[in-house]
Amino acid sequence: MSKQISKRAEAVLPNLTHLSTKLYPKNYSQFFQSAKGCIVTDVDGKSYIDYMCSFGPIILGHRHEKVERAADLQRVKFGDCLPGPSERMVELAEILVGLHSEWASWAMFQKNGSDATTLCVRLARLHTQKRVVLRAPNSYHGASHIWMGGRGVLPEEQAHQLYYNFNDLKSVRVAASKAGNDLACIVVSAFRWDFFHDLELPTHEFISGLRNICDETGAVLILDDVRSCMRLSVHGSWHVLAPGVHPDLVAYCKGIANGYPLSAVLGRNYLRGASQKVPSTGSFWCNAVPMAAAIATIEAIISEDAISRMEKSGIKLREGLQLQAVKCSLLITCSGPVQMPLLTFEADRREKPEGAGPKLEDWPRISLWCSVCAKNGVWFHPFHNNFLSAAHTPDIIDQTLMVTEKAFLAVKEVFGSDTYAAL
Amino acid sequence: MSKQISKRAEAVLPNLTHLSTKLYPKNYSQFFQSAKGCIVTDVDGKSYIDYMCSFGPIILGHRHEKVERAADLQRVKFGDCLPGPSERMVELAEILVGLHSEWASWAMFQKNGSDATTLCVRLARLHTQKRVVLRAPNSYHGASHIWMGGRGVLPEEQAHQLYYNFNDLKSVRVAASKAGNDLACIVVSAFRWDFFHDLELPTHEFISGLRNICDETGAVLILDDVRSCMRLSVHGSWHVLAPGVHPDLVAYCKGIANGYPLSAVLGRNYLRGASQKVPSTGSFWCNAVPMAAAIATIEAIISEDAISRMEKSGIKLREGLQLQAVKCSLLITCSGPVQMPLLTFEADRREKPEGAGPKLEDWPRISLWCSVCAKNGVWFHPFHNNFLSAAHTPDIIDQTLMVTEKAFLAVKEVFGSDTYAAL
Repeated sequence: MSKQISKRAEAVLPNLTHLSTKLYPKNYSQFFQSAKGCIVTDVDGKSYIDYMCSFGPIILGHRHEKVERAADLQRVKFGDCLPGPSERMVELAEILVGLHSEWASWAMFQKNGSDATTLCVRLARLHTQKRVVLRAPNSYHGASHIWMGGRGVLPEEQAHQLYYNFNDLKSVRVAASKAGNDLACIVVSAFRWDFFHDLELPTHEFISGLRNICDETGAVLILDDVRSCMRLSVHGSWHVLAPGVHPDLVAYCKGIANGYPLSAVLGRNYLRGASQKVPSTGSFWCNAVPMAAAIATIEAIISEDAISRMEKSGIKLREGLQLQAVKCSLLITCSGPVQMPLLTFEADRREKPEGAGPKLEDWPRISLWCSVCAKNGVWFHPFHNNFLSAAHTPDIIDQTLMVTEKAFLAVKEVFGSDTYAAL
Repeated sequence: MSKQISKRAEAVLPNLTHLSTKLYPKNYSQFFQSAKGCIVTDVDGKSYIDYMCSFGPIILGHRHEKVERAADLQRVKFGDCLPGPSERMVELAEILVGLHSEWASWAMFQKNGSDATTLCVRLARLHTQKRVVLRAPNSYHGASHIWMGGRGVLPEEQAHQLYYNFNDLKSVRVAASKAGNDLACIVVSAFRWDFFHDLELPTHEFISGLRNICDETGAVLILDDVRSCMRLSVHGSWHVLAPGVHPDLVAYCKGIANGYPLSAVLGRNYLRGASQKVPSTGSFWCNAVPMAAAIATIEAIISEDAISRMEKSGIKLREGLQLQAVKCSLLITCSGPVQMPLLTFEADRREKPEGAGPKLEDWPRISLWCSVCAKNGVWFHPFHNNFLSAAHTPDIIDQTLMVTEKAFLAVKEVFGSDTYAAL
């Protein structure tokens, strides 16, 4: 079945986006049939415990009952793509602003995470009438909008972007001073999530420092919480990563509606004028079903204590992996928030200069490890952070750890253990 | 109800996108409750015959049974936001390529129309390794991506864009020659759909001329069929507007899935390499439900003869409006394809210099006319093309014409008739 579909796809679908298994090692499935909770099933009927959650959107588990019920009700009784917004848009904006009442006063909705980050930059430039955007060099803020760069983008189109290093306040000050009186905004991701790099949480000092620089210069502080949306806190990632510090704009997407297409920008009152003037629209941006789904998702995250359950399972997984690695005398790093974890092998890193990749063959241990997991029905990503959902129960973690044990043993058998001399 | 919701919205929703009724004259509803067929109902229970079809997406009528059934089946039995694409993506690509088999060989999918037009430009620049984009100055190709311009965009970010006038081949040749050896692509909308301007169909000579210029220079010919998607022909708008001429890339959206969020790019085989290299992705771009809906939508457009039914109703509406205007001695222009019509009053235009607007108060007759229609339960747009769906039956047109008659009489009463002297 899968071979047949892949062959047909090869003819008419040259680019399977970020869901292409060309980006994975061996043993991963390309085409999927169905999903429920944290179990996903490919077109051949092979099932996986899914640690990617469709790259983030699935935060409560696939086909979460309350979310599906709310979406169905909106669709069947009311409607989705109406001639104007529905009351759901108002309710959702009220809920989101309410969860961020310490600083935010309004909301706007879009479809893609990159629509949201782009809108933030545009609002900042429109409000400040300044041009320079400060960002970290390899930080992913989306792929489809041109200012983000990449193939097919002209250097001119990335004008007035200056770079700082994540968690390095001095580098921000240098870049800000280079921008002089032309600094429009600082864009920062919730944590450092560059590919092929251990995940790095921001220090409170770093975030406070960004806040101070923005307060001093009048630049707009933009938190890209697209990927981490609702997974660390329903009040935004800084609620736990930098308590008491708030951005001027936040971009949300991914888990906001448990898989229904939606993104959002929340902003401070002083940016309300710009938000009314900026051209910001798309054919499906007011569709009501994703908003009904988002309302139900946020309610369920809160009422079902989803975040602390993800954290508990995430800690159990991390501790299990660390123990297994120790038993195999393999040095690993588990980085990131436990509900968005990444595993790397220190020997992979040691044998490669910093910044290597994105070529999987340069990271042979994690490739083999992931490949063995996939073969045995556990789906991990080799170089992008993974995602837990609220459907990842302790039992599921136990089942997972039975598979990861085999994967560590395979790595040990092929590459040998780490010795103290290697340190 | 609506006043209450509007008040709440004012606090938290500063920008209601293109669905804001601030862009309309009096008597339009802002928040909607439900929709079925071509009838939409606001939160106060007031119903309209809807001639905007949610700005295009609703092509078969709201909640079309076959489309909803296909979407439900995919959602409930299989899944939507899966860890990889579903077989639906392959099927839809095969159907679309099959409908454009004279020239297209592959498909890519996105969420917004502007994602699709942006991807086309990027593919053209990547493939040709040239920079200049030729476009018509006021042609809408989307609002959310930065190269399209607008508030909050830097002039630098719109680098290497040159302009031609629609249907003016000489102006294209001048712009192309100005681009010299650096011409990447020509972007052209299916017809001229500038706001506050009568709609203008392309001449066959114009489209053939664009094709020749691209063939001579190696530039990529991009058809923006986002708005007109599937409404003129399931083979693309040029199938009827310029038979025998084909683009190199086409951007689709709007009606492709009867309201489910989806856009698409189809391309020639020579651009397959670029399509594999371009970064092009978003969190929900492979969601399976909109693809199942698109398959059902396209099948229903064909099997229910939707386009010729829209045309018949469109002709009936246009003839009815023209007759009513004549009876009132009002000079009007009905422009555009009959299934995407626009009505303007010649006296509005006569009293304003060309290119006036976008201020409704400068167009008092059409504002009053639309306002009377809205009050009496018929929703027309004053300066954007309207849309018929396959649910607009001849009976619905009759009901509509009973209302438009009142609207013409109101215009005559307030502004007087046109006289021959005015010509």
